[in-house]
Amino acid sequence: MDIESTIRQTAKSAAKAASVLGAASSAVKNQALLILAEKLVSQSDRIREGNEKDLAAARENGLSSAMIDRLTVTDATIASMAEGLREVAALQDPVGAVDSSWIRPNGLEVSRMRIPLGVIGIIYESRPNVTIDAAGLCIKSGNAVILRGGSEAIFSNQVLAAIVSEAMSEAGLPESSVSLVPTTDRQAIKYLLACEEYIDLIIPRGGEGLIRFVVENSKIPVLKHYKGVCHVYVDRSADMNMAADICVNSKAQRPGVCNAMETMLVHEAIAADFLPVVEKRLRAAGVEIRGCEKTRRILPDVAPASEADWPAEYLDLILAVKVVEDMDAAMNHIAKYGSKHTETIVTSSYERARRFLREVDSSVVLVNASTRFNDGGQLGLGAEMGISTSKLHAFGPMGIRELTTTKFVVYGNGQVRT
Amino acid sequence: MDIESTIRQTAKSAAKAASVLGAASSAVKNQALLILAEKLVSQSDRIREGNEKDLAAARENGLSSAMIDRLTVTDATIASMAEGLREVAALQDPVGAVDSSWIRPNGLEVSRMRIPLGVIGIIYESRPNVTIDAAGLCIKSGNAVILRGGSEAIFSNQVLAAIVSEAMSEAGLPESSVSLVPTTDRQAIKYLLACEEYIDLIIPRGGEGLIRFVVENSKIPVLKHYKGVCHVYVDRSADMNMAADICVNSKAQRPGVCNAMETMLVHEAIAADFLPVVEKRLRAAGVEIRGCEKTRRILPDVAPASEADWPAEYLDLILAVKVVEDMDAAMNHIAKYGSKHTETIVTSSYERARRFLREVDSSVVLVNASTRFNDGGQLGLGAEMGISTSKLHAFGPMGIRELTTTKFVVYGNGQVRT
Repeated sequence: MDIESTIRQTAKSAAKAASVLGAASSAVKNQALLILAEKLVSQSDRIREGNEKDLAAARENGLSSAMIDRLTVTDATIASMAEGLREVAALQDPVGAVDSSWIRPNGLEVSRMRIPLGVIGIIYESRPNVTIDAAGLCIKSGNAVILRGGSEAIFSNQVLAAIVSEAMSEAGLPESSVSLVPTTDRQAIKYLLACEEYIDLIIPRGGEGLIRFVVENSKIPVLKHYKGVCHVYVDRSADMNMAADICVNSKAQRPGVCNAMETMLVHEAIAADFLPVVEKRLRAAGVEIRGCEKTRRILPDVAPASEADWPAEYLDLILAVKVVEDMDAAMNHIAKYGSKHTETIVTSSYERARRFLREVDSSVVLVNASTRFNDGGQLGLGAEMGISTSKLHAFGPMGIRELTTTKFVVYGNGQVRT
Repeated sequence: MDIESTIRQTAKSAAKAASVLGAASSAVKNQALLILAEKLVSQSDRIREGNEKDLAAARENGLSSAMIDRLTVTDATIASMAEGLREVAALQDPVGAVDSSWIRPNGLEVSRMRIPLGVIGIIYESRPNVTIDAAGLCIKSGNAVILRGGSEAIFSNQVLAAIVSEAMSEAGLPESSVSLVPTTDRQAIKYLLACEEYIDLIIPRGGEGLIRFVVENSKIPVLKHYKGVCHVYVDRSADMNMAADICVNSKAQRPGVCNAMETMLVHEAIAADFLPVVEKRLRAAGVEIRGCEKTRRILPDVAPASEADWPAEYLDLILAVKVVEDMDAAMNHIAKYGSKHTETIVTSSYERARRFLREVDSSVVLVNASTRFNDGGQLGLGAEMGISTSKLHAFGPMGIRELTTTKFVVYGNGQVRT
């Protein structure tokens, strides 16, 4: 069979499975997740055997040690995937919940009921654990899922997907609730993105190149996240210790992730006092600072920031610093260079806290807390599928609720329109 | 300036206006809507003058009388547009409302706050009143809007858009909150659909050809509605009078709209009694019936339905009728031929009502009520922007709430991640 027919057949089977999975009870779905968690542990040899093939190919192809590290599945990785599934099983099922209901003057009772989206396509790069994490969230929310992992993880993913199908089958759910695109041919992605009649949502997870490719080629709605250029604005009224704690945590606690701070904005009235304090702590954490002119007048050892630093997502121990004349200037900077991801104000002013929260147009806006809290788990949504920086359907971290939608359910007793 | 630069400039100005409009109070936005309503009436001569140019061109180009009818703006049309704006002004403002909030173990207070989407692009065909209806809903929900109407209504739309801008300006809001694409060149649509960095949502309103063109070419998320193939399933336990009322209303009250019934499914145990009753009433309403074999055994005068009738959206006084052996067969028929738009069951069985509501995968599912209730106004959402049959973000009628999204707002007192 050619690639296009294979992909369309996979999508069609997924759509068929989705109608069964969408009507499955929480008990059955949770049972499937727990069986899967057990199977992963009991079949760890089989998983590591598949992974070993990928690792051998990676070494042969001269992949970087960072890439090989991300690709490697250890017993600890397996234990962590299993634990993740148990946590998802423990979450409340969003499906069937009624968000709101009301009665119309003619007696019609109208409500919005949560339902699964249907079929979700996930296109991702190297980490094999995404295969299990994504499958778990989709099963819990009643969605069938089609997984398209990176070619370098194909053997690991094939074993993992086979184990998922076995677990589904043991739980009495359709095997094709979870399927892996059976080819690493890049053309397969294009065919997948054209299966509008079977697939309801595409989630690309990976670098900006992959995401742009998906957006340009998809006829199916896409939930996406290009980058995180996150800011902390230290207001003139900030508690300086708190501000330093928050800035160091936002930048250095885990610099390689999308919710790490990339630019620090400091009110000029507090800059001369605050910058030396925070500089010392940032340097102790290994952070390289690039400052605007005003910053460099206060911190002469700091390298100059260029225009290219303001929109930069370093994902590294580098920080751009700008002194601003007031909160408006900070908000304008954020509007111009930010990515609508995460912004924090550190302040003791009620009025400015309130205005910043209302007016800053980002998926998560915080007062007096680290940018690192933009995370489904940290905000209390449970495990997350990713973070959306486009506004439609989901803006910010996506938990299982964001993998559902609502339909209108209407109870009548013979009403007609006049 | 070339078309592409013009479009990009329009989109950029809209994005700038959106940040002002998004922060505007309900009082100011309502004021703008009321000023606009007054202006439409006081400037009706100016509107009809523009409209007359479109009508002259339409006559010259030999447009059908139905098209000319849709294009014509009378004093009654203007009064109805003004009344619509007053109704929208009276709706509760969704912006700034907090849908839910909770406190994390570390003391962080997390909430979801409703915010405008930003900039909405609306691409529509002939009716000039869409210009005002769409502008009103977008202004109320704090969104800037770019309108791209049909070329045959260009003069009417130019006058209407100019009046909107004047009203916005009088209310102290940016003129470019509402803008009309200044060219009827079809290429302009493609450029508009590429302005991903400025436009947050595209809503196409029109025929299936227009909508498919938009979906294929857009990098911006699209809320769309292909067609409405709506079903009424008359269960064996249905009250026959109620069923006949609902079927006649669903089919004949306004056959040209998307929420009209196209196929009636009848349980075989009730068919011999019910079909002659409903046939008589449908024929009295001018409906032509096309039936399956079993239907024709009971109603020998009915024309035979072919395979092409089951997925047909007639938008006319024609009805396909099928006798089914049970509710499962009805639900399978709906899953196979339906468009996820609107489905009704007429039944007195608690168990089957409940199962139909839970398992039928359509934007509005009803028990014992006409399909014609799938409408924002009828369901209590206020005026509607259209009906979405894709599941992301909005599924079913879209009111002003569906023109907003939520961001996370987080109140801390120094929390960092450990």
